[in-house]
Amino acid sequence: MEEFSAFRLERVDKVAHVIINRPEKINAMNAEFWQEIRSLFHWADQERSVRAVVLSGAGPHFSSGIDLSLLGETAGQLGRDVGRNSELLRSKILELQSSFNAVDQCRKPVLAAIQGYCLGGAVDLIAACDMRYATAGAQFALKEIDLGMVADLGSLQRLPHLIGEGMLRELAYTGRSFSGEEAYSMGLLNRIYATAEQMMEDVFSLAHTIAAKSPLAIRGTKTMIGYMRDHRVDEGLDYIATWNAAMLQSTDLRIALAAQMSRQTPEFPD
Amino acid sequence: MEEFSAFRLERVDKVAHVIINRPEKINAMNAEFWQEIRSLFHWADQERSVRAVVLSGAGPHFSSGIDLSLLGETAGQLGRDVGRNSELLRSKILELQSSFNAVDQCRKPVLAAIQGYCLGGAVDLIAACDMRYATAGAQFALKEIDLGMVADLGSLQRLPHLIGEGMLRELAYTGRSFSGEEAYSMGLLNRIYATAEQMMEDVFSLAHTIAAKSPLAIRGTKTMIGYMRDHRVDEGLDYIATWNAAMLQSTDLRIALAAQMSRQTPEFPD
Amino acid sequence: MEEFSAFRLERVDKVAHVIINRPEKINAMNAEFWQEIRSLFHWADQERSVRAVVLSGAGPHFSSGIDLSLLGETAGQLGRDVGRNSELLRSKILELQSSFNAVDQCRKPVLAAIQGYCLGGAVDLIAACDMRYATAGAQFALKEIDLGMVADLGSLQRLPHLIGEGMLRELAYTGRSFSGEEAYSMGLLNRIYATAEQMMEDVFSLAHTIAAKSPLAIRGTKTMIGYMRDHRVDEGLDYIATWNAAMLQSTDLRIALAAQMSRQTPEFPD
Amino acid sequence: MEEFSAFRLERVDKVAHVIINRPEKINAMNAEFWQEIRSLFHWADQERSVRAVVLSGAGPHFSSGIDLSLLGETAGQLGRDVGRNSELLRSKILELQSSFNAVDQCRKPVLAAIQGYCLGGAVDLIAACDMRYATAGAQFALKEIDLGMVADLGSLQRLPHLIGEGMLRELAYTGRSFSGEEAYSMGLLNRIYATAEQMMEDVFSLAHTIAAKSPLAIRGTKTMIGYMRDHRVDEGLDYIATWNAAMLQSTDLRIALAAQMSRQTPEFPD
Amino acid sequence: MEEFSAFRLERVDKVAHVIINRPEKINAMNAEFWQEIRSLFHWADQERSVRAVVLSGAGPHFSSGIDLSLLGETAGQLGRDVGRNSELLRSKILELQSSFNAVDQCRKPVLAAIQGYCLGGAVDLIAACDMRYATAGAQFALKEIDLGMVADLGSLQRLPHLIGEGMLRELAYTGRSFSGEEAYSMGLLNRIYATAEQMMEDVFSLAHTIAAKSPLAIRGTKTMIGYMRDHRVDEGLDYIATWNAAMLQSTDLRIALAAQMSRQTPEFPD
Amino acid sequence: MEEFSAFRLERVDKVAHVIINRPEKINAMNAEFWQEIRSLFHWADQERSVRAVVLSGAGPHFSSGIDLSLLGETAGQLGRDVGRNSELLRSKILELQSSFNAVDQCRKPVLAAIQGYCLGGAVDLIAACDMRYATAGAQFALKEIDLGMVADLGSLQRLPHLIGEGMLRELAYTGRSFSGEEAYSMGLLNRIYATAEQMMEDVFSLAHTIAAKSPLAIRGTKTMIGYMRDHRVDEGLDYIATWNAAMLQSTDLRIALAAQMSRQTPEFPD
Repeated sequence: MEEFSAFRLERVDKVAHVIINRPEKINAMNAEFWQEIRSLFHWADQERSVRAVVLSGAGPHFSSGIDLSLLGETAGQLGRDVGRNSELLRSKILELQSSFNAVDQCRKPVLAAIQGYCLGGAVDLIAACDMRYATAGAQFALKEIDLGMVADLGSLQRLPHLIGEGMLRELAYTGRSFSGEEAYSMGLLNRIYATAEQMMEDVFSLAHTIAAKSPLAIRGTKTMIGYMRDHRVDEGLDYIATWNAAMLQSTDLRIALAAQMSRQTPEFPD
Repeated sequence: MEEFSAFRLERVDKVAHVIINRPEKINAMNAEFWQEIRSLFHWADQERSVRAVVLSGAGPHFSSGIDLSLLGETAGQLGRDVGRNSELLRSKILELQSSFNAVDQCRKPVLAAIQGYCLGGAVDLIAACDMRYATAGAQFALKEIDLGMVADLGSLQRLPHLIGEGMLRELAYTGRSFSGEEAYSMGLLNRIYATAEQMMEDVFSLAHTIAAKSPLAIRGTKTMIGYMRDHRVDEGLDYIATWNAAMLQSTDLRIALAAQMSRQTPEFPD
Repeated sequence: MEEFSAFRLERVDKVAHVIINRPEKINAMNAEFWQEIRSLFHWADQERSVRAVVLSGAGPHFSSGIDLSLLGETAGQLGRDVGRNSELLRSKILELQSSFNAVDQCRKPVLAAIQGYCLGGAVDLIAACDMRYATAGAQFALKEIDLGMVADLGSLQRLPHLIGEGMLRELAYTGRSFSGEEAYSMGLLNRIYATAEQMMEDVFSLAHTIAAKSPLAIRGTKTMIGYMRDHRVDEGLDYIATWNAAMLQSTDLRIALAAQMSRQTPEFPD
Repeated sequence: MEEFSAFRLERVDKVAHVIINRPEKINAMNAEFWQEIRSLFHWADQERSVRAVVLSGAGPHFSSGIDLSLLGETAGQLGRDVGRNSELLRSKILELQSSFNAVDQCRKPVLAAIQGYCLGGAVDLIAACDMRYATAGAQFALKEIDLGMVADLGSLQRLPHLIGEGMLRELAYTGRSFSGEEAYSMGLLNRIYATAEQMMEDVFSLAHTIAAKSPLAIRGTKTMIGYMRDHRVDEGLDYIATWNAAMLQSTDLRIALAAQMSRQTPEFPD
Repeated sequence: MEEFSAFRLERVDKVAHVIINRPEKINAMNAEFWQEIRSLFHWADQERSVRAVVLSGAGPHFSSGIDLSLLGETAGQLGRDVGRNSELLRSKILELQSSFNAVDQCRKPVLAAIQGYCLGGAVDLIAACDMRYATAGAQFALKEIDLGMVADLGSLQRLPHLIGEGMLRELAYTGRSFSGEEAYSMGLLNRIYATAEQMMEDVFSLAHTIAAKSPLAIRGTKTMIGYMRDHRVDEGLDYIATWNAAMLQSTDLRIALAAQMSRQTPEFPD
Repeated sequence: MEEFSAFRLERVDKVAHVIINRPEKINAMNAEFWQEIRSLFHWADQERSVRAVVLSGAGPHFSSGIDLSLLGETAGQLGRDVGRNSELLRSKILELQSSFNAVDQCRKPVLAAIQGYCLGGAVDLIAACDMRYATAGAQFALKEIDLGMVADLGSLQRLPHLIGEGMLRELAYTGRSFSGEEAYSMGLLNRIYATAEQMMEDVFSLAHTIAAKSPLAIRGTKTMIGYMRDHRVDEGLDYIATWNAAMLQSTDLRIALAAQMSRQTPEFPD
């Protein structure tokens, strides 16, 4: 792995810990952030020894969202033709989206651990993770409306699958802050914690549990749940039958079964 | 705007207040209701100075649903040929549905404020609004089952996006009453209040907050969230990128940014 | 009706009570189970005098899921060609799925009453029911991950419509147990009870309520809600308009209306 | 029916003949055209005595497409904010599209009879008709590319269902002319004729044949074929089964059957 | 295999020949027909030694479509309640459709060989086959319109994938006859022949060619082409990748490769 | 641009000529081919001065399809676990598919010019191009069936949009050869030529015509036609309205209009 400027990467056994590492800027997402997060999650997707990923922010905050200087930079590239500007902007947005798609499509589960601010683009980011854990006092907001724009990095697309549509509309129209507690009660978070320490401990414990499972089965389960966001029930049933036609011939089933019989912990190859 | 017989329309700055105004009939939805609601929301959609809509019922109740005399009237139009009757009924249903589609497709956010009865067709109506607020003691029911019919005005179509499918089935099969409190806990409501006064105050406060945002961004956000009810995540990402290709060139972004820098409240043109 | 070895069938007026009846095996799903459940629900679908179905498990537990001996049997049928094995496995999975599809597609509402263990395949089963009721102390788990495989009998396909996607991912990746209480708070259950007796009483009371409604309207409502899992809002509105074009000409509406006028309980033909 | 400035309307028994009537302008589509065509086809849809529609152009040409002065007019309404301009343009395009949607959604079959020029917007128009008949020497072109724009009034959306995708791409990218003969060989036309007289005679003969069929069955058939453009085969089968559940109880079947037995021509009520 | 009354079944090596066998009734589709065709194609689907199916009609005609006495029978089952009649009719239609779905979903290719009349329901039937071959003088018609009804057995659903939409509309609205020659030129047929003998010879030659290919690959190819009728290109690419993940490990590839190297004819197991 | 081993790249004004350049191997697609074609079309997509692409094969043949040594190589990477092999194969297939997706998604039109053999993978490749032109004597075949496998690189997915489904099935099941003439008559080709020289001349003439149009409009048109393969008509109309909201503000329209007025050839910036 190359060096990173906006991130720090740590390995804890089979769990990769990806840390947004610009605490002095409240982990704002600058140009390097968008490049590096794509590389990091492509790597996590491909590297067989990684079985689960924890994503967190260095310092007291998770992230304040997109770095405003980045918007300014893009504005600077615009010319006089509205049509060509549109083409440029459309391709820029698609490019930024692809950075969070890399998180969504990483075949290993991604657990977000959130404390402090989680604003604007940071909400788009955690919506692309598999699960979300936060401190009760964490502070969330869909801030894009206060920039005079429609959020375009995934929160409006992915949140309807996580929180009630009525609440999503209120949050998106008003841009108001909401706490970890409220986020939990609306289904955005899997669990809340009194302190960041308790959260990190529990999240890593979960990540290690997942890392000990059959990696084939975990990757297949993530693929399947992602598939269901966009398909009918009958399509999903047909797809998993086709998928498992091959996968049920894997040795992982035999390893799992043998371990259950002998009441031992199974060991699955990467 | 023309005169209304089933409604009253009030303007509070940039917020339109649409009031169902047949309190002596528990705001039952008669023939005029179905015509007028369409006109009202088409107007709210087109009138640039309207930025948000509050929908409420005059008197102690929100609405008891469709006026049974209306059903009788339609029954009277049926002839002897089952086929032609079917064609007539199908077009009548589509016409009634289009009245609530006008609420759903109005590009300005619609906040429903509900007290007392909210029964049958009234549940179809609030399901077409953006957000729902009610008194804890409000009383809801999907009454259509007790008329020996399948609900056909939107509740079965839109509620799966708001409340759990298991609960929807129970409510639709039994037609049982449920309170504002229960409605809130199942995700139908954004918030509940002890009294109707507190509710109206809070709902108008929210509506004014929304009315102060960039109207371009609000309209785009509503379009986008509606789009996601019916589309895949990747389709949604592509669509918003295409949308924002133009909209990010709007002056509203500059106004928003300038206001943030100077810590002043931005003023957006209609 | 033929005899059953894995089930017991009881009739209580217009409610059919389908009981998984292998308590000595914790109601594990053996070869007979998969055949018989299909017959039972085809029968319940066709038999006009059945208006609602209660599904429960004999003894202290609902069901421990698929009988492992069944997996062994299938493994024994595999040959040396990976391709033909895949074809065989795919068709086996589709066949097992069709057993639970029979529950899902039965036109009469199915209420699951759950106590004790509800593990693996049993979660797939209750996900195919209309509503779910359980004791607070019932114990649930998506166990497939611990067999080294992706769940392929419907839970990953149907649960996203019942519980939050974030929670589903945690449960599917870790295979951890969760109680009736937690299941209720995440929306999987409609209600929880202190004891199994209270549960059965309430579930049967609900089932009888449903059985007293217009059976035409109940069947249509179930069809419509199932339709919405897989279709756009506008498709659903068009479909119900086409459906009701015929159904609003049924005598059940007149029976319902007459009963309301006379404040008597309506009696609907099967 | 009101008066028309861009059209002339004639009735021939149960066939409505809609004629674009600006021959001095090669039947270019001006502001009135777009309003009137919507009214005309709404009327044809609702008027029960109309059973089929023939659409043609007065003079030697069918139509040269959108009137360029209309584009200029819209350009004149644009202001300085790109965002608000976009919103205005988007709603203008949707409005123009809705004029041709009225042709597509008119429940009575529409037969286009084409001679001379059929250019740009005229191709969008005939793509919204049910069938297309032309003289061998008629001249077609997707001209939008030569205005520096993407065609946005339906040809790119509807032609893939009529002609091969490879040929569509060539025609759309080059904007080149093609004759009635070539149009016929690529599947755009149902038939070609040596002279306009022969064409009109044959087209009216077809229209009268259609007008003599059961109007219920014709309207249902058109609805069904339109439905299939946008749905899966299994969805289509389910939809027609739901549709015919009512329609097979119509008296038109008995009339048709009786006529067949007695070898007489059936007479169907409107 | 049981005995058949409406069909005759012959085996020619690995090709099954299914013959509609009521020549004295122009092979009209009576009650037995609809039952038996389902059994026959379920059998052909399951019987491993069958690799391809030829479907033809005994005597001078392929089939005159549904037996009108069958319609009369259904009419006789209708009662007085329009609603319950609708439910009955809907389920009858779905049942008839499922007979032709059995042809469509049979995993072995089905080649229709057509001479003489091929009318009404017979067009629905051949639309469910893989390929269609006919004599130049065969006579086709979508006759349902002349029964005062919308065709509901598959032709309107499946023909848009075979012939141009414009031509389909003309044929469905007018019910007019068209010859084998015209059917070929509009893409309904793969080939036409001067005589029935030449046709049968060529069709069996094709069927034997297909029967000699890898049966795994043939079944997969049919599944894939059927899948594409109802899915996006990207969904199809993902599905075949998942399918082939297992199938490329089959021994059939090695057999095929070895045969190519040695320039011998490969022999694939069933 | 880097150096290529399987391709040669030539520039003719604004047209890029991509030539498969392994004539001694009948232009078989080896490992380098799959890498380089992706780079080449990503470059053509991004390089603003390229307005159209011609794709051809060096020597007497277009291409014999995938290099069999490549299949052998992949086979060599397989291990003992069927499950992990499946995962590996699935990702290999997706990777190969992505090479042809790069052709499909290149925003500049791609014209295939075909002579001699065009077999197996080569058919998948030309199906991903915009238009196809060939000599009458060119020879095509869907050869995958003779390798004992289902074609998985795009032909089964993309051909249903180009040729009749009945013919596709015959070609895919039998793997038989067909000439340029037959390919033309079934709609696979836009045009056929007596000699390769005439073909190249005409194809380049078309490519230059396209290159002279507004590049914004060409790119938008290609995007739109690709969009329609996978979307409903109403979705397509909405999408183009959103797209053109920005694009109609481009200067290309004014350039086009001015040129038309002055009857001069317009010059569009890249």
